[in-house]
Amino acid sequence: MFYHVKELQFDARVSSPDPRFATLLLEQFGGANGELKAAIQYFLQAFAARKPYPAQYDMLMDIATEELAHLEIVGATITMLLDGINGELKDAAEQTLMTEFLKGPGKKEELLQQAIVNPQFFALSGGSPTLTNSQGVPWSGTYVDANGDLTVDIRSNLASESRAKLVYEYLLQFTDDPQVKDTLTFLMTREIAHYQMFASALDSIQPNFPPGVLQGDPRYTHTYFNMSDGGDIRGPWNQGRGAWESGEWVYVSNPRDYVEQTDGLTNAPVEGTTETRESTDAMNRQLGQQRSTEVKSAIQSDPNQWSKFADGSRSSSASVPHVEERVKSK
Amino acid sequence: MFYHVKELQFDARVSSPDPRFATLLLEQFGGANGELKAAIQYFLQAFAARKPYPAQYDMLMDIATEELAHLEIVGATITMLLDGINGELKDAAEQTLMTEFLKGPGKKEELLQQAIVNPQFFALSGGSPTLTNSQGVPWSGTYVDANGDLTVDIRSNLASESRAKLVYEYLLQFTDDPQVKDTLTFLMTREIAHYQMFASALDSIQPNFPPGVLQGDPRYTHTYFNMSDGGDIRGPWNQGRGAWESGEWVYVSNPRDYVEQTDGLTNAPVEGTTETRESTDAMNRQLGQQRSTEVKSAIQSDPNQWSKFADGSRSSSASVPHVEERVKSK
Amino acid sequence: MFYHVKELQFDARVSSPDPRFATLLLEQFGGANGELKAAIQYFLQAFAARKPYPAQYDMLMDIATEELAHLEIVGATITMLLDGINGELKDAAEQTLMTEFLKGPGKKEELLQQAIVNPQFFALSGGSPTLTNSQGVPWSGTYVDANGDLTVDIRSNLASESRAKLVYEYLLQFTDDPQVKDTLTFLMTREIAHYQMFASALDSIQPNFPPGVLQGDPRYTHTYFNMSDGGDIRGPWNQGRGAWESGEWVYVSNPRDYVEQTDGLTNAPVEGTTETRESTDAMNRQLGQQRSTEVKSAIQSDPNQWSKFADGSRSSSASVPHVEERVKSK
Amino acid sequence: MFYHVKELQFDARVSSPDPRFATLLLEQFGGANGELKAAIQYFLQAFAARKPYPAQYDMLMDIATEELAHLEIVGATITMLLDGINGELKDAAEQTLMTEFLKGPGKKEELLQQAIVNPQFFALSGGSPTLTNSQGVPWSGTYVDANGDLTVDIRSNLASESRAKLVYEYLLQFTDDPQVKDTLTFLMTREIAHYQMFASALDSIQPNFPPGVLQGDPRYTHTYFNMSDGGDIRGPWNQGRGAWESGEWVYVSNPRDYVEQTDGLTNAPVEGTTETRESTDAMNRQLGQQRSTEVKSAIQSDPNQWSKFADGSRSSSASVPHVEERVKSK
Amino acid sequence: MFYHVKELQFDARVSSPDPRFATLLLEQFGGANGELKAAIQYFLQAFAARKPYPAQYDMLMDIATEELAHLEIVGATITMLLDGINGELKDAAEQTLMTEFLKGPGKKEELLQQAIVNPQFFALSGGSPTLTNSQGVPWSGTYVDANGDLTVDIRSNLASESRAKLVYEYLLQFTDDPQVKDTLTFLMTREIAHYQMFASALDSIQPNFPPGVLQGDPRYTHTYFNMSDGGDIRGPWNQGRGAWESGEWVYVSNPRDYVEQTDGLTNAPVEGTTETRESTDAMNRQLGQQRSTEVKSAIQSDPNQWSKFADGSRSSSASVPHVEERVKSK
Amino acid sequence: MFYHVKELQFDARVSSPDPRFATLLLEQFGGANGELKAAIQYFLQAFAARKPYPAQYDMLMDIATEELAHLEIVGATITMLLDGINGELKDAAEQTLMTEFLKGPGKKEELLQQAIVNPQFFALSGGSPTLTNSQGVPWSGTYVDANGDLTVDIRSNLASESRAKLVYEYLLQFTDDPQVKDTLTFLMTREIAHYQMFASALDSIQPNFPPGVLQGDPRYTHTYFNMSDGGDIRGPWNQGRGAWESGEWVYVSNPRDYVEQTDGLTNAPVEGTTETRESTDAMNRQLGQQRSTEVKSAIQSDPNQWSKFADGSRSSSASVPHVEERVKSK
Repeated sequence: MFYHVKELQFDARVSSPDPRFATLLLEQFGGANGELKAAIQYFLQAFAARKPYPAQYDMLMDIATEELAHLEIVGATITMLLDGINGELKDAAEQTLMTEFLKGPGKKEELLQQAIVNPQFFALSGGSPTLTNSQGVPWSGTYVDANGDLTVDIRSNLASESRAKLVYEYLLQFTDDPQVKDTLTFLMTREIAHYQMFASALDSIQPNFPPGVLQGDPRYTHTYFNMSDGGDIRGPWNQGRGAWESGEWVYVSNPRDYVEQTDGLTNAPVEGTTETRESTDAMNRQLGQQRSTEVKSAIQSDPNQWSKFADGSRSSSASVPHVEERVKSK
Repeated sequence: MFYHVKELQFDARVSSPDPRFATLLLEQFGGANGELKAAIQYFLQAFAARKPYPAQYDMLMDIATEELAHLEIVGATITMLLDGINGELKDAAEQTLMTEFLKGPGKKEELLQQAIVNPQFFALSGGSPTLTNSQGVPWSGTYVDANGDLTVDIRSNLASESRAKLVYEYLLQFTDDPQVKDTLTFLMTREIAHYQMFASALDSIQPNFPPGVLQGDPRYTHTYFNMSDGGDIRGPWNQGRGAWESGEWVYVSNPRDYVEQTDGLTNAPVEGTTETRESTDAMNRQLGQQRSTEVKSAIQSDPNQWSKFADGSRSSSASVPHVEERVKSK
Repeated sequence: MFYHVKELQFDARVSSPDPRFATLLLEQFGGANGELKAAIQYFLQAFAARKPYPAQYDMLMDIATEELAHLEIVGATITMLLDGINGELKDAAEQTLMTEFLKGPGKKEELLQQAIVNPQFFALSGGSPTLTNSQGVPWSGTYVDANGDLTVDIRSNLASESRAKLVYEYLLQFTDDPQVKDTLTFLMTREIAHYQMFASALDSIQPNFPPGVLQGDPRYTHTYFNMSDGGDIRGPWNQGRGAWESGEWVYVSNPRDYVEQTDGLTNAPVEGTTETRESTDAMNRQLGQQRSTEVKSAIQSDPNQWSKFADGSRSSSASVPHVEERVKSK
Repeated sequence: MFYHVKELQFDARVSSPDPRFATLLLEQFGGANGELKAAIQYFLQAFAARKPYPAQYDMLMDIATEELAHLEIVGATITMLLDGINGELKDAAEQTLMTEFLKGPGKKEELLQQAIVNPQFFALSGGSPTLTNSQGVPWSGTYVDANGDLTVDIRSNLASESRAKLVYEYLLQFTDDPQVKDTLTFLMTREIAHYQMFASALDSIQPNFPPGVLQGDPRYTHTYFNMSDGGDIRGPWNQGRGAWESGEWVYVSNPRDYVEQTDGLTNAPVEGTTETRESTDAMNRQLGQQRSTEVKSAIQSDPNQWSKFADGSRSSSASVPHVEERVKSK
Repeated sequence: MFYHVKELQFDARVSSPDPRFATLLLEQFGGANGELKAAIQYFLQAFAARKPYPAQYDMLMDIATEELAHLEIVGATITMLLDGINGELKDAAEQTLMTEFLKGPGKKEELLQQAIVNPQFFALSGGSPTLTNSQGVPWSGTYVDANGDLTVDIRSNLASESRAKLVYEYLLQFTDDPQVKDTLTFLMTREIAHYQMFASALDSIQPNFPPGVLQGDPRYTHTYFNMSDGGDIRGPWNQGRGAWESGEWVYVSNPRDYVEQTDGLTNAPVEGTTETRESTDAMNRQLGQQRSTEVKSAIQSDPNQWSKFADGSRSSSASVPHVEERVKSK
Repeated sequence: MFYHVKELQFDARVSSPDPRFATLLLEQFGGANGELKAAIQYFLQAFAARKPYPAQYDMLMDIATEELAHLEIVGATITMLLDGINGELKDAAEQTLMTEFLKGPGKKEELLQQAIVNPQFFALSGGSPTLTNSQGVPWSGTYVDANGDLTVDIRSNLASESRAKLVYEYLLQFTDDPQVKDTLTFLMTREIAHYQMFASALDSIQPNFPPGVLQGDPRYTHTYFNMSDGGDIRGPWNQGRGAWESGEWVYVSNPRDYVEQTDGLTNAPVEGTTETRESTDAMNRQLGQQRSTEVKSAIQSDPNQWSKFADGSRSSSASVPHVEERVKSK
């Protein structure tokens, strides 16, 4: 259940209307990396976590709820950046939108130029936010990643927070309004804070690599295929140990020959690692059993109940105080 | 700002897993008439209402917030209808999904049949809700209508609640689980309650017809064009007064001739109503001015502030009690 | 079957090209509340109505067909607002688009500015309408609501007409061309007329509330949950009788406590209404049977035939007059 | 303007309900190659053709209108294939959908299996067509191609008709109902007929290759780049004259070396053709001027009027006969 | 398997940045008729062709791969047209985007005007291409047509190449940069070359009309329905032999009467052609058997293997030379 | 430029057709976490990296190209899982799809059940892959993240690889075919290898946190807001140092009060960190300048050329050897 508090989490203010920046800001309202995406993504991930991982569930819902608060801040800012449009549109008979604004040469041109920036602010939403990105593309459920596995979901979140942070960084360069800048800086900073919360949570799950349960086939884990011509550029991603705990990269400079010689890789040798197919199989069985037990043991049945209310048949409805009473005693 | 309460608004329970009904139920989670759509729609509409119409703003946010609670109930129910899948998937090495379930003839077939109902429950979300409708189409921002005018927005909501109610009515016929039925009945009933809240709110705005501000051109308001052949069927929608306060329908049985004779309707006479172009123009001016004033007078400036916090520069940060203190004194 | 008449329903004219207003006007061509949406929505709803409700079927098809005519008017207006582009583009070798227009300082800038308003008018459609809204988002089947129930479908239509009307009202403020204004006023007015047709048709179905067949659970129909903090604002939507025929709103000022005390609402009392679960069950059975019979009795079988042609096997093809004859005798 | 005729163009009939085939058939209702796509595509293309090419405009509107009639036939067939569902759903209290159908063992399973085929027929549209393809994806404006050039648009139509024909060919293999087969065969055949209409129309425009106005750069028109390894396979598409009127294919067996030797093709020689850059430039100028003139000369102005109604200011509205009169005199 | 070559197929260069033209050019990067669409479409069609039609498979993959190279050229050009943006954005603290550019009056306005052209270049992608069309609509899988039949697929490709060619023709008129023009001319020309490759390939398949296997019902192949009023315009598409090999068009001037007289066309006579239902049935059987055999005989089984590698169990992994060796011997 | 090699990177084989698993496998072909998404994402990111970061560009293109090879493997596997369908469909006259398969009781039912799993395999693509996910949703450009910043882009890739790996892990549980399992295991393992390449590359960029350039506002970086009721759960994400290099989490147990006391956070103190606004400002300036310089210094101009071809005007076309010669000398 949710509650709404009328005050914003941050004291968003706007110095003067700016329809163009309102348009850019839509990127964080109804865009692929915006606040709604973040709120819904963590909310969705929380369903699978609720029973087996109540601590992470609490974290996911805390952050999801904060993102809803941020969505509200962004929407409020957009509305204030558009203030005036709605009132003008209401005076439809006088068409003040045309007449009022036309007090100097070029004014009409300027007005139309403003209108055309985001036609839907003027012709559809009447000066309030649209659920679109900065180019009018409607928000889509495809923005949201929730895959029923915390080692994967949290990594999705680290990436989401990174993109959201960068978009605020870009946006900050397109407004001069100090009050809008304050709001954006607050919102940008929270993406950094959330990033670190997720990073901390991922650390607390061990092992967390590879994501999920299954280990890789050691014949293919440490191989780098040089799929492009030109100078063979070497770096920590194809030379030395890189991010591996042990072993080292095996560089295949001519993948085409290698593929042919290994019968389409089916006869590729294990190289670069001390793991064997036997060792990874054992790990697969052990970790699979552990994670499976964690999850399965948390399922309730007969019936499966989400919250911890008393049995529904317990009390007669007579024992419930009348509403007016409850209102008084609050 | 929002708060999350861990208990659901309704004590959702499930007797036993049922992936197929979980699929149908997605229609109310990530579908065009589902709970997310309702929550976001009212939330969006509230931005334009906040300043000029605080009472309606309060109502919109109350209902939006309740719809979020309903979204959570639907998601919890879907998760419980899928319970077991996630745990099995984790045991990836043993592939118990294959082996455990294959204890009798036809079992594997049945399992695959279940899986294929909604492949993404098994291969993507790992047994948690997806942000899609029952056929896998991602939720879309196009589901949401918010047009910056209460006489229009509330009508959009009456229609939304009607559709959501009907979908619950349909869904109720596809489950035998009494506990799921209880939950669906609760949710269906709330759509009816919300409908009446919106109907009451629309009544409280006068005049509310036509939606928006401008009156229709009296030459075209009362005309019914018979655009199809076959018997001319007459009903209250093209005969008599219908839903009009005054006047009556004018039935054009042969639109093609009528269009030609009136020079493409430009010379169509005013018929069926006592309104004139002068009377409607007067109304346009009067109502436009009134509504415009209501909205414009509510805009704050220098700066425009959404919430009622004290001036940000008032207190030095030193005056804020340290966090630990506040936690204690809670 | 449809026929096309080359004349428009309204004598649409344009004083001079205006690519920017053409862009705004796309909102009514390929937008979510535009004419195509309306035409297809009513057309879709008509399928379920055809057999059991032939009078309403006639109305739905009349209005759907008129909306197609309006789509044509909007498309024609957009084309005229873009006239000149297509011809210039054809002169590709001379690139007159660049050279012709560049007769004064700043002309090139202006041209590019125009082009960028809606790049697809210039680089894709060559000066004819695109099936998108004003921001280039392609028309989507999600805009259309048809749910197989007239008490719901007609309410969807009331909302659609309201939004379409408002968008025309907004658009009227962005053009000075008196002839375009005439066309928009005609189209806006027809949305009002259609609204009243639908309102009249809804009245003629009794009972029509709640939408669909099932009544609400009386424990939850009259309750208002105050889901947000701050001053508890009371209005006809949560106080008194509101839009209900009888009974009155029950205001739960602290939903969280109420939910806990009623075991997740499962033990909530019936309040605010004299209905009981027994009375609503009886109504459900009675109305369900009535509506079901209406629909089922209209289905034809062995075979199920849509139109009323004679039995296909009746006449030999020899008896059909040769085409040339028919053309002559027309 | 359009008119609707209640009879279908073809006497569509159905022997017995078949929800699964109804699902497949959606591919031709709301799918990418379906009847709505065709109708809207030709309708859209007609706008640019109306003034300069009235004969082709007539053809485009004739076929567009026939496709609308076909859309109606497909929708009617789907509705008949689903007959019974809507009536059962209305009996919501009795839940006959569950009880009636459960007369033998396995019946409930079968019902659910049917329901899950296309959940939206049962839980959303209540037994009428949805504006989606066979997998529930909403119809999209992206299906429609209209580019303001008949030599291109007609080619788009040849492809559209080909795909639509093939889909009917596939669908015919999934029903045994002879009456449904008759309908599908009729519809499939009309795609062939339309194909030939478009092919005939394309022939009547000369020159029609290359599509549009500009000729290709002769350095690059006749070159085939062998971009894949393995045996160099030669065929009429990279050897000999192929479909060219004159010249022959130039086969570059090693594009990588060729690109380097020609400085990124900027120094590629003219080969395989007798055209020169001068000859193609001349053709560009001549054809561009011709086509541009055709189009520009057809634009009307002051004002630009779509239909040929008399001047709107001519007659006073008094001279228009009263509606009742016109109805009588019809 | 693919290889990447760092050099572009064409020496793409840009004289100076031009964000507006970069926006227009997106139409060929992530638009419906762009290079990605072409690459993926031919790649998709190749799967069904690989085994039964290896020559056409080779052609499809050659052209698909060239289109990938073109996608890279377009992306590189867009990036160069935006050069400077990314570097400025990095200097986030100095906000040089605001300060550097503001050296004269009107400069800030101009900057914002540039930014708003395509907000995502500035606020999302940081100066690199987005996978959208010129109006920000994300690339969609619906752009791609692959139907498992070469007589249909190749026709889809003829249309695709035609549209892509025309869009380049339009785009050429919106840039003055001679180096960008060179690149566009190269790309436009290749669409013409590909068109002729496909046309040549289609000719090489006989019969290729009607597309697919089934012939049309001779009662409906040669009929033209005059679905619109006004002067009956005759042309090669409804008069004479048109594009048919034999027979002639049958013109039905009054479809409504004709439909009624033929009992919904079920009793329509065969006219305009010497084909009979018997002759087309025979052709259906013969061609169906031939094509079916071609395809079925190419399927391998036990197991079905895509490439021609040796049996995977042949060689022990010991026989594969160590990677370092292979690298040396390259 | 790309080259295609006819052999697959991995020797994909299939024991026997399995349309249902083909459907599930679409998730990795045209799904949100599939191979096309990966290929295009890295390809897109490479544009911004090409000039300033050639080493990372090389890595991005190597991996992008390998993902294209994987896309081909997945498509080949789907095609083999569907082998037989295309051949049967071609025999359209005999309708062997119906007759051949109907050799025993229940066979027709089974066939239809198979068909309905993924209607488009049968009625649209004719047995080849569709560019959709497992539920028929078309691939979308929204799946792709490329933001012009390596510290962000690489994090997006870590998340993408994680999800792709998990989906393969899930899919492995739905097939018994050992050869398909081999292919899936190879593909899954490569996601792990790519993950480590990206992790290694991210490590090689210092500093890489926070993503982008700007530091957070120290008043908000270390604060955790407890936005939900119930037991306050503490973990490394809201207690102690967590993933921070220094400082510690500040836990705000009652955000509502805290927000009010700090005037909407505008007066929140710096807590939990030793950073100050001055220290972060300094870092912003320094890092911004460094990164900006790296990028800007790599831009070429006059003209800006992507590849390193010689000046296009250098050699006359005469000096280029004739194609036939080049072919010989290869």
